[in-house]
Amino acid sequence: MDDGIPSLNTAHIKGSMNEELESTLKDYSAIQAAIEQLHWDQETMMPKNGLPMRKAQLSYLTEEAQDILTSERLEKALSSYEDSDDETHHAVVRELRRIQERAKQVPSALTKKVSDAETETVEVWRRARKEDDFSVFKDRLEEMVSLKQDVAEAIDDTREPYEVLFEAYEPHIEMETVERIFDHLTKELPRRLERVKQSDVSTPSPFTGSFDAETQEQVAKGIMADLGLSPENSRLNLSTHPFTVGSPFETRITTRIDESDMMKALSSTVHECGHGLYAVGLDEDNWWNPLGWDRDLTVHESQSRFWENHVGHRQSFFDYLLPVLNRHFRGEFDEVTSREAYEAVNAVKEDNYIRTEADELTYHLHVAIRFEIGRDLINGDLAVDDLQEAWNERMESYLGLSPDTVKEGVLQDIHWAQGQFGYFPTYTLGSMLAAQLNEAIEDDVDVDGAIRNEDFEEILGWHSQRVHRHGQRLTTPELIRSATGGELRVDAYLDHIDAKLHDVYDVRM
Amino acid sequence: MDDGIPSLNTAHIKGSMNEELESTLKDYSAIQAAIEQLHWDQETMMPKNGLPMRKAQLSYLTEEAQDILTSERLEKALSSYEDSDDETHHAVVRELRRIQERAKQVPSALTKKVSDAETETVEVWRRARKEDDFSVFKDRLEEMVSLKQDVAEAIDDTREPYEVLFEAYEPHIEMETVERIFDHLTKELPRRLERVKQSDVSTPSPFTGSFDAETQEQVAKGIMADLGLSPENSRLNLSTHPFTVGSPFETRITTRIDESDMMKALSSTVHECGHGLYAVGLDEDNWWNPLGWDRDLTVHESQSRFWENHVGHRQSFFDYLLPVLNRHFRGEFDEVTSREAYEAVNAVKEDNYIRTEADELTYHLHVAIRFEIGRDLINGDLAVDDLQEAWNERMESYLGLSPDTVKEGVLQDIHWAQGQFGYFPTYTLGSMLAAQLNEAIEDDVDVDGAIRNEDFEEILGWHSQRVHRHGQRLTTPELIRSATGGELRVDAYLDHIDAKLHDVYDVRM
Repeated sequence: MDDGIPSLNTAHIKGSMNEELESTLKDYSAIQAAIEQLHWDQETMMPKNGLPMRKAQLSYLTEEAQDILTSERLEKALSSYEDSDDETHHAVVRELRRIQERAKQVPSALTKKVSDAETETVEVWRRARKEDDFSVFKDRLEEMVSLKQDVAEAIDDTREPYEVLFEAYEPHIEMETVERIFDHLTKELPRRLERVKQSDVSTPSPFTGSFDAETQEQVAKGIMADLGLSPENSRLNLSTHPFTVGSPFETRITTRIDESDMMKALSSTVHECGHGLYAVGLDEDNWWNPLGWDRDLTVHESQSRFWENHVGHRQSFFDYLLPVLNRHFRGEFDEVTSREAYEAVNAVKEDNYIRTEADELTYHLHVAIRFEIGRDLINGDLAVDDLQEAWNERMESYLGLSPDTVKEGVLQDIHWAQGQFGYFPTYTLGSMLAAQLNEAIEDDVDVDGAIRNEDFEEILGWHSQRVHRHGQRLTTPELIRSATGGELRVDAYLDHIDAKLHDVYDVRM
Repeated sequence: MDDGIPSLNTAHIKGSMNEELESTLKDYSAIQAAIEQLHWDQETMMPKNGLPMRKAQLSYLTEEAQDILTSERLEKALSSYEDSDDETHHAVVRELRRIQERAKQVPSALTKKVSDAETETVEVWRRARKEDDFSVFKDRLEEMVSLKQDVAEAIDDTREPYEVLFEAYEPHIEMETVERIFDHLTKELPRRLERVKQSDVSTPSPFTGSFDAETQEQVAKGIMADLGLSPENSRLNLSTHPFTVGSPFETRITTRIDESDMMKALSSTVHECGHGLYAVGLDEDNWWNPLGWDRDLTVHESQSRFWENHVGHRQSFFDYLLPVLNRHFRGEFDEVTSREAYEAVNAVKEDNYIRTEADELTYHLHVAIRFEIGRDLINGDLAVDDLQEAWNERMESYLGLSPDTVKEGVLQDIHWAQGQFGYFPTYTLGSMLAAQLNEAIEDDVDVDGAIRNEDFEEILGWHSQRVHRHGQRLTTPELIRSATGGELRVDAYLDHIDAKLHDVYDVRM
């Protein structure tokens, strides 16, 4: 594929990386992968009583990773490597210096404290959510906010703490850009939601009813395989909150199954496949350095959202999927047309409280609530005591909804319990980028045709060339420019939404 | 329970252990548990392509563990701790000095090489076994033998290398004792096998036929729960070669399921439960030091064998189990008597090639073959080229069998592929101890009565007091004396076997 993008000269990179740097980074990368693996295990496999040992393991490994980043060994290896005009050297040094500098600022006692708090708080959150009782979680959340404020202050006390934390998930996009995007969306989207509410178009779902869980799991595995994740490089498990871990070698995705609504498993599977395909699409030879590391969460989410929304929500996707479902569910989808399925899956959900079940339009209003509240909590502009009120106010003003339970409110997401403040915005940034990638890919690939031919490899190949194989060679804005020809922007997404609103609801904005 | 055994004074131990020693050992123990966890994952969960990353993780962690053992930090903490007349201090120092001294002898480059070879060789073994082709595995085995010889030589070049390696699995029993036990068994057991072969008693199994795999898994989970492993502290998975990992906090056992022979899943589940119960029976508060570590493999295997043979093979166990099976398999066991089940499960398998499927009598002949061959390979008295011949000769002379395939011959066990030379004898030593424990428990507990009342806790409680809670406070011989009143010996086992032969085959020895 001649895409005008300079190809990665892996041999050159490997040859000139010095040995000490390589061995240091291999240790660092192996630790990070072990941490990820232990988190995956905690979410999917670990018996409850295993927690104290898991805490000890994660705490030890987190400290080790920080010790390597702040070590004399890395400093020496890095100094002797950075003297070069080579563009690739510059990229490697840029990314390593960035994480090294952050690590140096945080005292290792604080790192350990945060790691312990994260491992434990998740379990408290799980209990609070089950008991639908915010008070169980409140003190822990306060402690977590305070610890993360300490981390931010240690790294850079001249800037707002939320901005500093955000950079752990997306280091190359300015907070100003983030604010601008959310301001734009919280202005534009409620208007559109209002118009849909006035419409009397009905979009009955052929995916609600009663669908055997095991058969759904088989379907999900089939989709994974068709999209490019084989049993050799991936696995599927179930978890309450779907997520993905992965390296260039293998990836593990999780999905959730609701027997009364099959769309939950299908959507989350396709979404997590996007993450997994990115992981195994990274450069195996450079697994241990920034050239083989994913370009952080905006780009990661652009991949999951691309597959979920810009492949999985097309009518053509149901031309592929309905026969598959018909085989697994013995003819139950005989009468369903791809148009019906398309309309159902693109329905705007007017009374949904749950972010992960939201449609493409309301999703970003859910994220906006979390961005604004997370920012205010961390920046000291909102007390945990006032959190529920702030949540409910925004649910009302953005979505016109008032949640009755905390399970369907502030306790629905795992992120804050895991200490991931600054993470939420990347969901929206990634979705914006997904829409831009969707515009760009149409110049090269007949996406509908490829899907109907089950030639997902053509679509994957495009992303592999434009996104995956670059690792962190380019910064996020550089990668966005190189892949889409422009800057990160909202209008590709809005155009996409408006086309759907027109198509499904006959609404013109 | 007043058992005359001095109770562990945990508070005292914790109070007087110095802080630096505690933090060093916590790191060490967390690493060891992470290594075990990653091995478990490799056997049960990992997609095949994950191997290079797994290798990097295990290699890093193995080196880290060795670094801690050989560190100035441990040395200093240990020296300041060992100045004491306290018996518990002595035990802690004795065990730590032992592993410290071993670690100090092995160059860390060799440790890394061995770790890499182990991770890779298992995968080659898996392929060779699948293809039933020894030649696929031969070179790797030679390399492994040679690496393990290097390790033994580095630790102590004045003794036979097999003896040195054996001490990694059982540090406190002399090789002379091991040789004596196997000499005794290879003399006594073939005679008994001959007598059984002459008998015309038939022992048809009610457990062969066709039994749904998922239902078998449910039964296995039920047995686990009844024996004392709950979903809070344990989990069950499937693997080709059943095994257990665990800590005082949680344990994970695996079993294998054969739809045509349910006894495989039942036996291996009860066996692995014994390992798991020992793990979670260790002292939680001392998880990070020898007082909370298991007393090596002889004692571990005494626990698994006790539950498998001295609980699971009793007629009373089937008074408990048959109603359970009947519930799960809808009355299919209505007509089966516990006597029939007892006879079937205690049948001597005259033409079985597979160690893990052997009965209590022939099992130790299978182990003897592996002990003798492993010893000869490592001590340089047998070349890998002559391995198959040596194997077949012993199969013929001990068991009267000639294997047709390598899958049913030298490739059946994972141990050598994992570099575990010196491991096999502990299976037999543990079984001898299990029979001694079985004699001893009868003085305190009505075992048949407890089983019929489903009061497994009474049996577990005895082992907890006599074995589990001591960790490594006593050496293996001390623990054996304290728990059974005598030395490790063969005759408790032979008496047990002879009673069974009499009972089932009407054979008197």
